Amino acid sequence: MKFNINSRVLEKLLAKVLPVVPHKTPQPILENFYIVIKENKLLVYATDNEIAIKATSYINAEDEFEGVVPAKLLYEIVRSLGDEDIRFEASPDYKLKIKTDNGQYFLTYLTDVEYPVMTAPTKETKITLSGPELKRAFDLTTYAVSREPARPAMTGELLEISEEGVKFVATDGHRLIRYLYKAHESEPVQQYIIPEKAVTIMSKLFDEGEVNLYPDDTVLGVEIENVEMITKLIGHKYPDYSSVIPLDNEKSMKVNKNKLLSSIKRMLNFGATNFHQVKLTIYEDVLEISADDAEKGHRGVDKMPCEFNGETMDIAFNTSYLADVLTHIEGDEVIFKINLPTKAIIILPSAQKPKEELLTLIMPVRLNNG
Amino acid sequence: MKFNINSRVLEKLLAKVLPVVPHKTPQPILENFYIVIKENKLLVYATDNEIAIKATSYINAEDEFEGVVPAKLLYEIVRSLGDEDIRFEASPDYKLKIKTDNGQYFLTYLTDVEYPVMTAPTKETKITLSGPELKRAFDLTTYAVSREPARPAMTGELLEISEEGVKFVATDGHRLIRYLYKAHESEPVQQYIIPEKAVTIMSKLFDEGEVNLYPDDTVLGVEIENVEMITKLIGHKYPDYSSVIPLDNEKSMKVNKNKLLSSIKRMLNFGATNFHQVKLTIYEDVLEISADDAEKGHRGVDKMPCEFNGETMDIAFNTSYLADVLTHIEGDEVIFKINLPTKAIIILPSAQKPKEELLTLIMPVRLNNG
Repeated sequence: MKFNINSRVLEKLLAKVLPVVPHKTPQPILENFYIVIKENKLLVYATDNEIAIKATSYINAEDEFEGVVPAKLLYEIVRSLGDEDIRFEASPDYKLKIKTDNGQYFLTYLTDVEYPVMTAPTKETKITLSGPELKRAFDLTTYAVSREPARPAMTGELLEISEEGVKFVATDGHRLIRYLYKAHESEPVQQYIIPEKAVTIMSKLFDEGEVNLYPDDTVLGVEIENVEMITKLIGHKYPDYSSVIPLDNEKSMKVNKNKLLSSIKRMLNFGATNFHQVKLTIYEDVLEISADDAEKGHRGVDKMPCEFNGETMDIAFNTSYLADVLTHIEGDEVIFKINLPTKAIIILPSAQKPKEELLTLIMPVRLNNG
Repeated sequence: MKFNINSRVLEKLLAKVLPVVPHKTPQPILENFYIVIKENKLLVYATDNEIAIKATSYINAEDEFEGVVPAKLLYEIVRSLGDEDIRFEASPDYKLKIKTDNGQYFLTYLTDVEYPVMTAPTKETKITLSGPELKRAFDLTTYAVSREPARPAMTGELLEISEEGVKFVATDGHRLIRYLYKAHESEPVQQYIIPEKAVTIMSKLFDEGEVNLYPDDTVLGVEIENVEMITKLIGHKYPDYSSVIPLDNEKSMKVNKNKLLSSIKRMLNFGATNFHQVKLTIYEDVLEISADDAEKGHRGVDKMPCEFNGETMDIAFNTSYLADVLTHIEGDEVIFKINLPTKAIIILPSAQKPKEELLTLIMPVRLNNG
């Protein structure tokens, strides 16, 4: 087996596959790329048994080849090279020779090994989205996925196809983010829960171009340009998130988002070691943000203009959660939709982009001193 | 006590003092700034009992003040503000009020506390250097200071004043860096060992301007612009480093530094988990760099042109140490001065800057397979 490939082209290819390779695994074969050369194609596979990925590049190869090669070592060598031509040769003594103008690198490879294969999706359902659109949907929502394994459904992101469009939902019980992309309307409602690691890896794959998603009962297939990926879906029922979203939050407070976020971040410096609470006191045209370190006696108060159509009220939040949520809402202003200071608060961008609808829900906390 | 100060001016002042504040200390008072206002000056002190620092700013203050204020909290609040005017007020109930156009922050302060004071240097010896010069001397050498507490003298950087000029020496037994700045020649030789933390903090203080150093038997005083610092010196005898520097390394190998460094970094990917060894095989006009992972059978070899006036030889190095050393030598080419492959190797920049002389010594290691 012999072929040439440009170092930057190969680096880009391997960089797409490498994130799937597990760092620590009881199954050492997974620390390798499975490399196949046939019909003038270079195929690079990786899997962690939950996610499998394959990237393809067209090459001119004299023979066929099949073997497993140390993933991180191959990637690091290729990455360390300048923009140059690399010559690959496999010798019968299980050495993969990587040759450049000034260097030669010999990697031990294995053949005749059973590299794990995942079942492909049925492809009965197909959803096509643009890569940047899908990346945007994940970027705006995934941060709220739960890290708590006790509720497995919530450790993934919900992909819901309904008559309204495609919804992306993430929640950890304290916050719930729902992003609706108004396309691909379909009935009946279909729900798929994508594990968080798969979402992170998918996001890195999306440059330009179209993405085809093939969800079925147990796995999701993803096709983008020269990459195919399969991920297991989380086989639990997603909580009935719609019932949590209040419809009667009629009081509305509009405020400058960046000013509020910068104040909330400042308030992170106040408050006890393990739990940072921030209080919003909302007047008709002024919002007061305050935090106390009761133990040490420090206190911070900021004021800024707002527009509020309700009676003066105090609402307390976990400071980090509120900072997180505001960081992920775009635009200059946000709107807090409120019923009671003890019930779920909805935060919306003051303007939604065409074809999309972002809704953020955050649970207030009980006031320390109130 | 009342005074106004610009947020950016105060941030810059506090940023100089904050690095001295210890992260964890059995003496909680050290987590505070000691703040004194008198004669229209704001004085901010910090100490960890090894290093003490004071920064001064001129202000218009109505009264005098003296108290300790939480260091990190004050700094983070000031840093979080825009470029704006801040009003400080101390109230008799031990609250320091920090007021801006839109916010008020109340910090509990303490008075009547014994804030630790360090003995000032005698100022019998004074060395004046430019800030950038001194920073350069530290940047080129400090990385080789030992982290091994068993040999306390080597955990600091040696400042030696001699008839040749000012020398800065750092060594961890594997590498030794000697930087000579040809100024302030003096006899007899004086040696001062500055702890590594003090060197790091000093380096951050040096912008433009002159630095006055006042070393005495036990402490070093540092004055730069509006900052005064005192650090304890390490009271052990520095090893006789001169005797380690060979004078008979007559074989000389010149090579492109960036090419060599990039190869050495690539070789870090080969080799065993805990110990990375790289082999340099030096021919008359070719340098071969190689590394092996004997356990797994991977191997890397690079070749590049060199100029060598000796017989072909193999020398092995700890890969990380060699990479470190090359990273800290400037210029396009380096010269290896060699006697035997088992004895100390000297690495020099191919050209020295005026008034300075940088010498790097590195110990080879025993060849794994030879």
